[in-house]
Amino acid sequence: MAEHTLTHVDAPAHMFRGRPYIHEIPLERMVGHGVIIDVTEKVAVNVGYGVMVEDLLNWEAHFGKIPEGAVVIMKSGWYKKYPDPALVFGSEHWNNTETHKFPSWTIDAVEWLLSKRHVIALGVDTPSVDLRGLRALPVHDRLFRDSIIALEGVANLGAIPPCGSMIFIPPLKLYKGSGSPARIFATVPKVMHNDGHNEVEIALKDANHRFRSARMNGKIP
Amino acid sequence: MAEHTLTHVDAPAHMFRGRPYIHEIPLERMVGHGVIIDVTEKVAVNVGYGVMVEDLLNWEAHFGKIPEGAVVIMKSGWYKKYPDPALVFGSEHWNNTETHKFPSWTIDAVEWLLSKRHVIALGVDTPSVDLRGLRALPVHDRLFRDSIIALEGVANLGAIPPCGSMIFIPPLKLYKGSGSPARIFATVPKVMHNDGHNEVEIALKDANHRFRSARMNGKIP
Repeated sequence: MAEHTLTHVDAPAHMFRGRPYIHEIPLERMVGHGVIIDVTEKVAVNVGYGVMVEDLLNWEAHFGKIPEGAVVIMKSGWYKKYPDPALVFGSEHWNNTETHKFPSWTIDAVEWLLSKRHVIALGVDTPSVDLRGLRALPVHDRLFRDSIIALEGVANLGAIPPCGSMIFIPPLKLYKGSGSPARIFATVPKVMHNDGHNEVEIALKDANHRFRSARMNGKIP
Repeated sequence: MAEHTLTHVDAPAHMFRGRPYIHEIPLERMVGHGVIIDVTEKVAVNVGYGVMVEDLLNWEAHFGKIPEGAVVIMKSGWYKKYPDPALVFGSEHWNNTETHKFPSWTIDAVEWLLSKRHVIALGVDTPSVDLRGLRALPVHDRLFRDSIIALEGVANLGAIPPCGSMIFIPPLKLYKGSGSPARIFATVPKVMHNDGHNEVEIALKDANHRFRSARMNGKIP
């Protein structure tokens, strides 16, 4: 199984020598408050949309300041397109990466999250935390410089609220892995009505695409 | 990567048609109260020891009744032997499964846990939930008949207390997988001393062997 398929984690060693491999990242850097940035409406009019600082400020206006150590994930609705590669990569010619088109993050928004909110992980429900059509991978570069992990191909974001969840990102402990498939999941508070009292219970929500046969493992990077 | 290597989960479909594949097991069946049955002293005098009902009653005498939906794991100390296959399988001739020797569960103890305590998962820090030297796999058979998962090769049990933890078993969502490597971890209450008050915080404890190169992936089943 390839390390960088479907729902997976990229480790900082993916691009930089001396930065942590997947087996070196402690569990404490794999769990955090979930912050889901919904840009579905913007993506509906621009499939190449990049999340901006404005979107983050808008989230904070509704839900309060993004807590330290958060796991911040872009929700574009793209996860519904999996596993068809032509839809996932936004191109009939998906073998040619230059034709790809999907939403992701702007470097300005990522810089803001790292320097002002000290997040522990950044994610997307698309194939990459970097927009395609750039000459470089500025978001990967910026994250890995600070030893921050990237989550790609996160799924089922309709089940996770904008705030209030805890997101768990347990990748396989692959020795010297540059990344790993991961069973990402969230705990979500659920208000129960019981004998006239409200009780809060925790529900578990899956955030994964299922891995298919060798066909998909081989073809989706 | 093979599905049944090092720290991993066996799905009921591993042996029975019509029982759940790994992708069909809901997350709610992957999280439960941790019950660690320490048989280190018995294993010191008998490396082929099988956990008995008596060991479970002894645990309950100390810590109270095993709760419904528990994740019950034998702690034999064997996890310290990984990854050397001669030590893990208890044989210099570890390519020959008939020579294997390691501790695990007796079928009587497993029957008791399933019928009287309704556990959701059974584990070992050795390579199999079944003892070797039998003509069959009675524990696998009994677990899978009730669609219960088996955890094999669980590690780092010195960091997880006998009771009080929550154990998370998130395997990869492998479509039609008979099992999966999993990043098993536990949340453990930790009493903090802060300004004269005791506060309880949650610490995360890893319960995994790290996956090594192709050498180990190929050779350890």
